[in-house]
Amino acid sequence: MSKNRQIYFVQRPNGMPDENTFDLRTSEIPEPGAGEVLVRTVYLSVDPYMRGRMSDRKSYVAPFALNEVLSGGVVGQVEVSKDDRFQAGDLVTGLLGWQDYSVAKADELNKVDPNLAPPSAYLGALGMPGLTAYFGLLDIGQPKAGETVVVSGAAGAVGTIVGQIAKIKGARVVGIAGSAEKNRYLKEELGFDAVINYKTEDVQKALEKACPNGVDVYFDNVGGPISDAVATLLNKFARIPLCGQISMYNLKEPEQGPRIQTSLLINSALMKGFIVSDYQSRSAEGTKQLGEWVSQGKIVYQENIVEGLENTPEAFLGLFSGENLGKQLVKVSDIQ
Amino acid sequence: MSKNRQIYFVQRPNGMPDENTFDLRTSEIPEPGAGEVLVRTVYLSVDPYMRGRMSDRKSYVAPFALNEVLSGGVVGQVEVSKDDRFQAGDLVTGLLGWQDYSVAKADELNKVDPNLAPPSAYLGALGMPGLTAYFGLLDIGQPKAGETVVVSGAAGAVGTIVGQIAKIKGARVVGIAGSAEKNRYLKEELGFDAVINYKTEDVQKALEKACPNGVDVYFDNVGGPISDAVATLLNKFARIPLCGQISMYNLKEPEQGPRIQTSLLINSALMKGFIVSDYQSRSAEGTKQLGEWVSQGKIVYQENIVEGLENTPEAFLGLFSGENLGKQLVKVSDIQ
Repeated sequence: MSKNRQIYFVQRPNGMPDENTFDLRTSEIPEPGAGEVLVRTVYLSVDPYMRGRMSDRKSYVAPFALNEVLSGGVVGQVEVSKDDRFQAGDLVTGLLGWQDYSVAKADELNKVDPNLAPPSAYLGALGMPGLTAYFGLLDIGQPKAGETVVVSGAAGAVGTIVGQIAKIKGARVVGIAGSAEKNRYLKEELGFDAVINYKTEDVQKALEKACPNGVDVYFDNVGGPISDAVATLLNKFARIPLCGQISMYNLKEPEQGPRIQTSLLINSALMKGFIVSDYQSRSAEGTKQLGEWVSQGKIVYQENIVEGLENTPEAFLGLFSGENLGKQLVKVSDIQ
Repeated sequence: MSKNRQIYFVQRPNGMPDENTFDLRTSEIPEPGAGEVLVRTVYLSVDPYMRGRMSDRKSYVAPFALNEVLSGGVVGQVEVSKDDRFQAGDLVTGLLGWQDYSVAKADELNKVDPNLAPPSAYLGALGMPGLTAYFGLLDIGQPKAGETVVVSGAAGAVGTIVGQIAKIKGARVVGIAGSAEKNRYLKEELGFDAVINYKTEDVQKALEKACPNGVDVYFDNVGGPISDAVATLLNKFARIPLCGQISMYNLKEPEQGPRIQTSLLINSALMKGFIVSDYQSRSAEGTKQLGEWVSQGKIVYQENIVEGLENTPEAFLGLFSGENLGKQLVKVSDIQ
């Protein structure tokens, strides 16, 4: 133990975040009080939703405060515990800072069981992205055997789980992603029925070909023109879980587009936004089911791990370039 | 009985329908076969959804065929019955032609009980518009006591019923309509809590004032900029029954607008299109409940009646000028 490196949020981005958004500072390692725990960060999760928190406007969750340490999902290891429920060496997960060491209230931490899945999975398939896929797809999308499920952002941490759950439910799964490598992975490793490369293909034509029976469920991670194309192929009573609009997050002005209302109207279709915390009361159910599917090999996942706390901003920005495959993590220290 | 005047659909409109869309012709009065009934038209209903059927593209229901008699909701009186279930003089309702006399299969007719409500109500409060309001508001909108319900097209056949049902459920009701007379009616006769004149007021500002606690349910009859304004005020878990998009029906190209997805996403809000036929299996429930509310005086309604079959096209076009208050009907003959 030496110092605590911390990544501060120092300027709200206008458009895409850049080096002026973040500042790496160093301070003393904090000491936990009664009922608190000192956690050493092992893995940090960077996720697209964090972009919304960087703007000073209403979003999923409260905006990040300026001149404070950024925060997100962390898997860490307990260094010092001032609470009976935890002891040094325990692996835990919680919403903690972008820093080497965090002091957290014991109430805000959950233990990680490394026998069920590797600890990093608690930030991915068994964590926020997995639960997002699970509840959005099953509660809102409700895919039935034989139906066609389209997922955009298909190679991302949420999209890969969505497609695999849809396959488990017997649906035909069409994934939209941004590279040949991603699409090979989706088709060959995850069993997607069809894949579309939105960077090289005419999405509208490719969708028409990939969805000869129309679209029953569209799990929307991206918004924008890709979603406009899917909207033209909705079937009667289609369902659209609205999970993210990554194509919009860095725009300076709200984008205009063809109104989707007409398509929803003529198809009696449903579109519903959600955030994983809407399902907080059911998270144990989701984690349990996802853990079973992972241990049965029905859900597999891939991680893209960047080494070093100082590279967290870069890893975060990489989410918006369409390059990453699977869950983006930052490795900050080793499990001891 | 003499001849049968019929209004044919002779040209698909590009934009707003006009005199070239319709042709009034005369033929012999048809004769019913076995299991059929000859019905004399008493009231014809003209409704905004019919505009969608005039285009040769996917809509709620199949497009109207060219060079055939237009059709819609009718209350009529049986002239000749070749089916045991009906006899001459019975009042019936069904989907029949824009003509003086129609031959219908007995299976496609329902009896009208003039003791429950005036026969014309079976085309309005107890008919398609009433059931549209009932199922859209209660099944999709699910207003709770104390919540704020906004309805656009508030003075129309559907909107007036929506607002009254929302009041029955204890909600605060805000109506958006296009004239001072309509708004006076909504507020003074129907008990709406607040009204907005979209032709003379800044809708955004007026909505902010009328909805200090945000919007929980938005019953959308109109689409376009009015709905864009409502979308900025949605509360967490808001619901939007998407009933019509009358502002779009006569556009030659799909209109562009700010994408609503972001607003749905950050509020975990739901938007769902529907058509009354989605609820066909529950129509008896709806008619019964609406009939009770009408007989209890909890739902009142107004009709705007044009006289004469030949004026049906004009009555139909009037739906799009924002002038009509309540259910638009055409009186074709007297009950005998």
